[in-house]
Amino acid sequence: MTTDALSQSTWRARLTHLVEHPRVRQTITALICLNAVTLGLETWDDAMRVAGGLLVGLDTAILSVFVVEVAVKMVAYGRRFPRDPWNLFDFCVVAIGLIPATHSFSVLRALRVLRVLRLVSMVPSMRRVVQALLSAIPGIGSIVLLLGLIYYVSGVMATKLFGDSFPEWFGSIGASMYSLFQIMTLESWSMGIVRPVMEVHGWAWAFFVPFILLTSFAVLNLFIAIIVNAMEAHHRAEAADEEAEREAVRQQRHERLDEELRGLREELQALRRAVERRE
Amino acid sequence: MTTDALSQSTWRARLTHLVEHPRVRQTITALICLNAVTLGLETWDDAMRVAGGLLVGLDTAILSVFVVEVAVKMVAYGRRFPRDPWNLFDFCVVAIGLIPATHSFSVLRALRVLRVLRLVSMVPSMRRVVQALLSAIPGIGSIVLLLGLIYYVSGVMATKLFGDSFPEWFGSIGASMYSLFQIMTLESWSMGIVRPVMEVHGWAWAFFVPFILLTSFAVLNLFIAIIVNAMEAHHRAEAADEEAEREAVRQQRHERLDEELRGLREELQALRRAVERRE
Amino acid sequence: MTTDALSQSTWRARLTHLVEHPRVRQTITALICLNAVTLGLETWDDAMRVAGGLLVGLDTAILSVFVVEVAVKMVAYGRRFPRDPWNLFDFCVVAIGLIPATHSFSVLRALRVLRVLRLVSMVPSMRRVVQALLSAIPGIGSIVLLLGLIYYVSGVMATKLFGDSFPEWFGSIGASMYSLFQIMTLESWSMGIVRPVMEVHGWAWAFFVPFILLTSFAVLNLFIAIIVNAMEAHHRAEAADEEAEREAVRQQRHERLDEELRGLREELQALRRAVERRE
Amino acid sequence: MTTDALSQSTWRARLTHLVEHPRVRQTITALICLNAVTLGLETWDDAMRVAGGLLVGLDTAILSVFVVEVAVKMVAYGRRFPRDPWNLFDFCVVAIGLIPATHSFSVLRALRVLRVLRLVSMVPSMRRVVQALLSAIPGIGSIVLLLGLIYYVSGVMATKLFGDSFPEWFGSIGASMYSLFQIMTLESWSMGIVRPVMEVHGWAWAFFVPFILLTSFAVLNLFIAIIVNAMEAHHRAEAADEEAEREAVRQQRHERLDEELRGLREELQALRRAVERRE
Repeated sequence: MTTDALSQSTWRARLTHLVEHPRVRQTITALICLNAVTLGLETWDDAMRVAGGLLVGLDTAILSVFVVEVAVKMVAYGRRFPRDPWNLFDFCVVAIGLIPATHSFSVLRALRVLRVLRLVSMVPSMRRVVQALLSAIPGIGSIVLLLGLIYYVSGVMATKLFGDSFPEWFGSIGASMYSLFQIMTLESWSMGIVRPVMEVHGWAWAFFVPFILLTSFAVLNLFIAIIVNAMEAHHRAEAADEEAEREAVRQQRHERLDEELRGLREELQALRRAVERRE
Repeated sequence: MTTDALSQSTWRARLTHLVEHPRVRQTITALICLNAVTLGLETWDDAMRVAGGLLVGLDTAILSVFVVEVAVKMVAYGRRFPRDPWNLFDFCVVAIGLIPATHSFSVLRALRVLRVLRLVSMVPSMRRVVQALLSAIPGIGSIVLLLGLIYYVSGVMATKLFGDSFPEWFGSIGASMYSLFQIMTLESWSMGIVRPVMEVHGWAWAFFVPFILLTSFAVLNLFIAIIVNAMEAHHRAEAADEEAEREAVRQQRHERLDEELRGLREELQALRRAVERRE
Repeated sequence: MTTDALSQSTWRARLTHLVEHPRVRQTITALICLNAVTLGLETWDDAMRVAGGLLVGLDTAILSVFVVEVAVKMVAYGRRFPRDPWNLFDFCVVAIGLIPATHSFSVLRALRVLRVLRLVSMVPSMRRVVQALLSAIPGIGSIVLLLGLIYYVSGVMATKLFGDSFPEWFGSIGASMYSLFQIMTLESWSMGIVRPVMEVHGWAWAFFVPFILLTSFAVLNLFIAIIVNAMEAHHRAEAADEEAEREAVRQQRHERLDEELRGLREELQALRRAVERRE
Repeated sequence: MTTDALSQSTWRARLTHLVEHPRVRQTITALICLNAVTLGLETWDDAMRVAGGLLVGLDTAILSVFVVEVAVKMVAYGRRFPRDPWNLFDFCVVAIGLIPATHSFSVLRALRVLRVLRLVSMVPSMRRVVQALLSAIPGIGSIVLLLGLIYYVSGVMATKLFGDSFPEWFGSIGASMYSLFQIMTLESWSMGIVRPVMEVHGWAWAFFVPFILLTSFAVLNLFIAIIVNAMEAHHRAEAADEEAEREAVRQQRHERLDEELRGLREELQALRRAVERRE
């Protein structure tokens, strides 16, 4: 390692230390909360009229601090930075605030509020909750895929069957899939959609009722898969702890028994030697 | 302890004994039930016309009894009174009835009905159910916080995105959060809210559908957390009982084994003594 | 026992044997199914025009058979008849068909269809399902009572708060409780009820949103109580079986160990005797 | 076995080998995905105008490949073909595409999209999910039957009670059962159906509210039955593994104990021999 590399490494360690310092973390967390308030107030016309400049200024100032923080983290962690998904999340959420929001990009201005979600990446207990939620996803991959397939097939069928008569609801695959999602959530499925459709196609219930039963059953099984996984994980961890404890007790008892028996054997051997010596 | 303090303490013990006497408790419980009936009848115009004076008189009389009861409890328990949350609940619920209800405070008159909830604090089995419900809350604190954060961020975003076009639903953060709560409960979310919004902003589904999926998933995990906690608690208690029983059996067996081994060793020692004696 | 009583007892045993004979049960079950079909056809105007007389005749004939069957059971079982709730259910359901249905009692004519539910009391597997459903009820008694109390209190409050402005929905306690039930099922709660109410009383959400959260939470806990009870019952039965098996293995092993040790002790005693004999 | 039969059997084995070859399976899977895309594009008018001939041609070509594949499988598997339900599924889904779709059979053209569901029978992980879903069905047979009975009885009753006043909703058993299904899913049950009915028949809530409670309770128990079954299966498999492991540890310990005791006994016997030799 050259002196340069060494000094760079020391310099990085110092930056890492700085950026992970509890004080710094607390300050950033407080700034996120303050930003949440200012972003909320910005939607309130009265507040904007009275203190609009202040609010926008505060927002810019806080964003600058976040930019500096993320930049320092990028330098400090180097290649390790993009490996932690939380870092990428912070980077994206801060970057959105930097894109100049012209009138045609007013959506981007709304997306700035996502910055408040950094609270999740800063508060450990919320981070754990989100990670627990995400960990439930792989176990349900196959069911989600199956649901997706059912959706696509039903969407195409609905478009072919009802697209001509009800273009607003089933005019394209996109419209059909949105309507089917609405039907799956059971919102106005009958009074709003299926009864009107049945006035044209009397047999339409034979498409929609099985669709509802099928998707409800699939979603139910998706829920059950998550519940069973969650309980199994809890149960296994708990049972393992308990079992380890019991095992320790058993092991201890067994060792005492062994010792006892070894003692007996030694006693016996001593006795034999005594008897044999006397021969 | 001075004689005064002693006499005061005796006096308090007597009051406590009085207020906790089964007869007194039963009378109070009966009065709560009677009050539930009179408060119900007060909303019935015919009943008020026929026996309005009687009903109001009964209500006042019962309220007086409750005031006396709570006052006696406050004197009897002294500083211990506010430590039991059920006492505070009783105090608040009775105090509401004492606030003079002018016309502008007609809400306060409606809140008097909360007095009937004292039944929960008087009947032990319902008290246990409420405490079980409350005990489920700490375990879900982080998810509730996360949901709150998602709500706030979505509320601000919805206000910025749709506030101008649909002021009735998304005009302020409060209105947005109410509308988002309605959408989360899936009530008229599509036909009532999202389809009209999509006529102005065609991409609105890209905001609302993920919001529904996200909050449903979070609420589902909230449910699962409660279920898992409840089952774990049950399971643990049960398993502990069973395990204690099995452990007792094992312990007993082990002791018999130990005794057996001790017997063997004594036998051996006796044998050795016999052998050595013969030397 | 007199000869009369004896002959009566024999006569009863024969009737019981007759009424519980598989052939008789199968015939009754078949008649119930046939009756289900005729009662269904009676609602179809075309069928009534073509074969109305036949359908009504068949219905009367089947009802007669049921009356005879229940009468025979009453004689055969004597005092034991009303002890089995399924017998009472059969009796009520058949008796409804005997009440003369004048025009003003057209509801009674509709209640005749309940006769088809006798299928549940005749088919053992469905009987078991219903008994399992009913067995879940005692475990949730306290929560149901609590929910009832919340309902009553909310009903009285809603009547007092919104009864004057919205007499159709909250005009009386009955109307309020029906509306609150609708709100609890989340049907049109916002667009249909709460938004219109909020136009008059802006703070109405502060009554309805907590009501929804509270009742949802209580119903959720009701579900969980049922799930936990069901699983516990399953788990306990299963775990008990497994544990009994394992215990048997352990017991066997322990007995062999005991025997082994006893053998050793006897061996030792024999040895001691041999040594002592030689002294 | 004649030479003919032998050659036929070899020929079949080769066909089986061919049809189950990973390359062939992958090609078929890819064709299904491609077909999903073309069938989707066929619903898009712009795509049909630009490349309608190509899409229809591709569809026909892919269908031909599927027909050949299923035919080869039928020849290769012989009598074993209809025993695997997945084969029957493939057969039906492909056969639908062969029925000539005249204008009056436009529904058949929509059913062609079901061909995409062959993806389920080709991808093992989705096959497993579907089999898991289907395996949940037998355990809930009795509850489904009970629900069906409740539906039929309620349908007949609703037709008799409300058929005259509300022919659109309760005019026939079919219409009633559809309306009751809508009510069970809680969609617009109150605002859309029961409130209008109650304007004519004031007591209608006494029919519909118990119906909702009853079916919700039955469906809830159906869910619980599935959850309990799923967990039991998981739990049993897991517990069996764990127990086998623990049992192995116990067995091992017990064997060492046995060995120890055998050593003691041998020692004793040696001692006895030593004592006896000295006699």
